[in-house]
Amino acid sequence: MMTVVNLQKVLGTDAADITLINKNEYHYESTWLHEAAAGTLLSDQVRYDIKDVIDSVKTKFVQATVEAIDVAGKKVTTDNGVFTYDYLVIALGFEGETFGIPGLDKYALSIANVKAARYIREHIEFQFANWSTDSVKDDSRLTIVVGGAGFTGIEFLGELANRVPELCKEFDVPREKVRIVCVEAAPMVLPGFDPELVSYAVGKLESKGIEFSIGTPVVEATPEGVNIKKGEDHFEFIKAGTVVWAAGIRGNRLIEESGIENMRARVKVDKDLTVPGSDNVFVIGDCALMINEETNRPYPPTAQIAMQQGEATAKNIAELIKDGETTEFVPDLKGTVCSLGDDDAIGVVFGKKVTGKRASFMKKMIDNRALYMVGGPSLVMKKGKFNVLK
Amino acid sequence: MMTVVNLQKVLGTDAADITLINKNEYHYESTWLHEAAAGTLLSDQVRYDIKDVIDSVKTKFVQATVEAIDVAGKKVTTDNGVFTYDYLVIALGFEGETFGIPGLDKYALSIANVKAARYIREHIEFQFANWSTDSVKDDSRLTIVVGGAGFTGIEFLGELANRVPELCKEFDVPREKVRIVCVEAAPMVLPGFDPELVSYAVGKLESKGIEFSIGTPVVEATPEGVNIKKGEDHFEFIKAGTVVWAAGIRGNRLIEESGIENMRARVKVDKDLTVPGSDNVFVIGDCALMINEETNRPYPPTAQIAMQQGEATAKNIAELIKDGETTEFVPDLKGTVCSLGDDDAIGVVFGKKVTGKRASFMKKMIDNRALYMVGGPSLVMKKGKFNVLK
Repeated sequence: MMTVVNLQKVLGTDAADITLINKNEYHYESTWLHEAAAGTLLSDQVRYDIKDVIDSVKTKFVQATVEAIDVAGKKVTTDNGVFTYDYLVIALGFEGETFGIPGLDKYALSIANVKAARYIREHIEFQFANWSTDSVKDDSRLTIVVGGAGFTGIEFLGELANRVPELCKEFDVPREKVRIVCVEAAPMVLPGFDPELVSYAVGKLESKGIEFSIGTPVVEATPEGVNIKKGEDHFEFIKAGTVVWAAGIRGNRLIEESGIENMRARVKVDKDLTVPGSDNVFVIGDCALMINEETNRPYPPTAQIAMQQGEATAKNIAELIKDGETTEFVPDLKGTVCSLGDDDAIGVVFGKKVTGKRASFMKKMIDNRALYMVGGPSLVMKKGKFNVLK
Repeated sequence: MMTVVNLQKVLGTDAADITLINKNEYHYESTWLHEAAAGTLLSDQVRYDIKDVIDSVKTKFVQATVEAIDVAGKKVTTDNGVFTYDYLVIALGFEGETFGIPGLDKYALSIANVKAARYIREHIEFQFANWSTDSVKDDSRLTIVVGGAGFTGIEFLGELANRVPELCKEFDVPREKVRIVCVEAAPMVLPGFDPELVSYAVGKLESKGIEFSIGTPVVEATPEGVNIKKGEDHFEFIKAGTVVWAAGIRGNRLIEESGIENMRARVKVDKDLTVPGSDNVFVIGDCALMINEETNRPYPPTAQIAMQQGEATAKNIAELIKDGETTEFVPDLKGTVCSLGDDDAIGVVFGKKVTGKRASFMKKMIDNRALYMVGGPSLVMKKGKFNVLK
C-alpha cells in the first residue's frame, strides 16, 4: 500500500502503468489482528477497502491470489490471469512458522489474517457458550494457551486479559474458571526489550491472571491441548479448549517456490531492497531480510520498517524509470511500543522508556499515523483509534 | 415476579413470610429470548437481577433449583434445602416439546432460556466463522432451519432476517449463500392470527429471503440436518448447520412428577387458579391450563395473561390469609403483537389491526410495560427498549 500510494505521488500519470494485486478487496493492518482475535476490536475495524485508498486513474487494482512468481520470465501468475512487469515489488507479508512441532498446524489457531483472527474470537466465545450450557462442565474448555511470549503473543495476551472479564460477564462464567497460559520456549519474555519494561509487562499481565511458563518448549499439540517440556525428562500436558500459536513468523512460501534465494522464505535483499542479481525486483516487509550492521543481526520484521521500505521503493522505482540510480535504504528507527490491552503499553520512543497510559496513547498515535500515511485524514477518521484519553 | 411484587404491595410486613425460589439470581423475559438467540440483543439485556427488583425486607430470595413438589406434604425440595409452605405458587414456566420426533432432543437447539439462547447465537456465528476459513466450503453450514411457524418461530425468523445481513458483512459471506428455512407441520403460519396479518408477515419475511415449507412435518433430525415429509411417500432432507426447534411448548416436568393431575405438564386450574382439590396451591403462567369458555379452547400461554395471573394470585393469597374468599380470575385481553424484527410487527390491539413501524412501536411499549409492572421506571431505564422511533 505504501509503495502504491507513493508511486502515485512521485510518478506522472503517463510515466508508468501501476498494477496492485491483492488476494482480498481489502487491506488489513496485520499489527492489529491480535485485537480482532481477542474480540476487543471488530474485524472490520482492522481493515479498509483498497478502492477507498488508491487512485483508480493511476493504479489498476486486481483482486487475485498470486500463485507463482517467475523472476526470469518477468511474470506473475494469479488465479485471475498472468501479469508481466518491468518492475516488481514483492510485499506478500508473513506466514506462521510452526518449526515442525507435531500437531501445531492442525490443532493450534494462528493469528494469520482477518478470517483467522475472527475465527479465534468465535472459537473462544463458542467454548464459553458451550461451558455455560454443558451439564457436565469441563473447565479446560475455558483454558487458553498462547504459544509465544514475543511481540504478538504479549500484545494478544494484553487484549485477552481485558476481554476475558467481559466474556465471563456475558456467559456467567466465574473468572477463576478461566486459565490463560503463555508458553514460551526461550528463557525470556519479549527478547530485545529493556528488562525493566519486560518486568513491568509481565507484572501487569500476571496481575490480570495470566500465567507464564517460560523456557518450556511446546513439543506437541493434540486436539486436547499441548505438551510442554519442563525439564530434561519432565513433560507437562496442558489441557486446553483453545491453543493460539503466536511464536514465529516467516516469509511467504511463494518466495521459496519462486527460486529466489531465501532463508525461511525471507530474501536477504541488497541495500536498495532489490533481489541480488535482479535489480528490477524489490522485496519489502516481512519477506525482506535486512542486516543491521551495528548489531550484525537482522532487523525485526516491523510495520515501522516495512512502511519506510514501501516509501523508499516507490522513490527508487521512479528513479529507475528515469534511468537514474537507486538509493540505499536506511531505516529510521523511532522506537517500538508493545501494547498491553487498550489501556496499557510499554515501549521505547526516541530513546525514552514509556509505560502505562502514556505508552498506550503513543501506540494509538503510531497506529493512526500508519493509516494516515496510506489514506490521509479520511482513513484515520474511519478506522483510527480514538479512545485515547479514557 | 408479578406475584411477589404484588404480595409485597398488598401484605403488611408481618402478615406473611414470602420466599421466592429461583434457579438463577436473575429473571429473564422469556418472550425476548428469540432476540438473544438471533444476536440482535445482548443476553444481559433480556434479564435482570432479582435482588434489584424485590424488597429484601419483605421477601426472602433463595437461589435454588426446585427438585420436587409435594402437595400432600406441603413442601418443596430444592438443591439448597427443603421448604415448607402454607401457600404455594407454581410459576415454573415452559419447557420445549419435541413430540417424540427422533433426533430433535439431541440435534436441534431450543430457545429455552438465556444460556440456550446465547448458545444459539454463538453456534450460528461459529458456523459463519468456519465457513469463512474452510478451504473446501460446504454452504449447508450457512443453512438455518427453524422448526415452527408459531409465535416464537416467526419472531425468531424476524430477528434472523435482520441479523443475517450483519453476519454476512462481518464474516464476508455473500447473502445468497445463506438459507433460512421455516418448516411447519401445520398447514398454516401463526394459527389464530388474522389471515391478512399473516399474509403481511409471510410477505415481509419472504422479501428478506426467508423460505417457508408449510404443511411439511419434521420427521427426524440428524447431525446433518432435518428430514421433512412433503407428501404421502415423499421426503426431503434439508442439510443444515443449524436447526432451531421453536415448535411447541409444554409445562414443567416437575408438575408431572408431583402427582398433580396435568396434561403435558400443564394443570387445568380452577377459576381462582388453584389446583383442583388443593386450594392453597396456585399454578400460573405456562404451567396453567385455562379454558376460554367463549371458544371452548385453552387460552394461549402468553405473557399478558401470565402477568395478570400473578397479580390476581397475590390478591387472592392476601384474602386467604385474612380468612377471606378468592376471586375468579378473568383475563383482560388487550391484544397481541408479533414482532418481525426490530422495525416491523403485526398485531391486533384493542380490536384494531396494526402492522409495520406502528405495530413495532406498540410491541416495544408492551415489552417496556412488562418491565414497569415488576420493577418500575428504574428497570425500564435499565433494560427497556428505546430504539422506537428510528
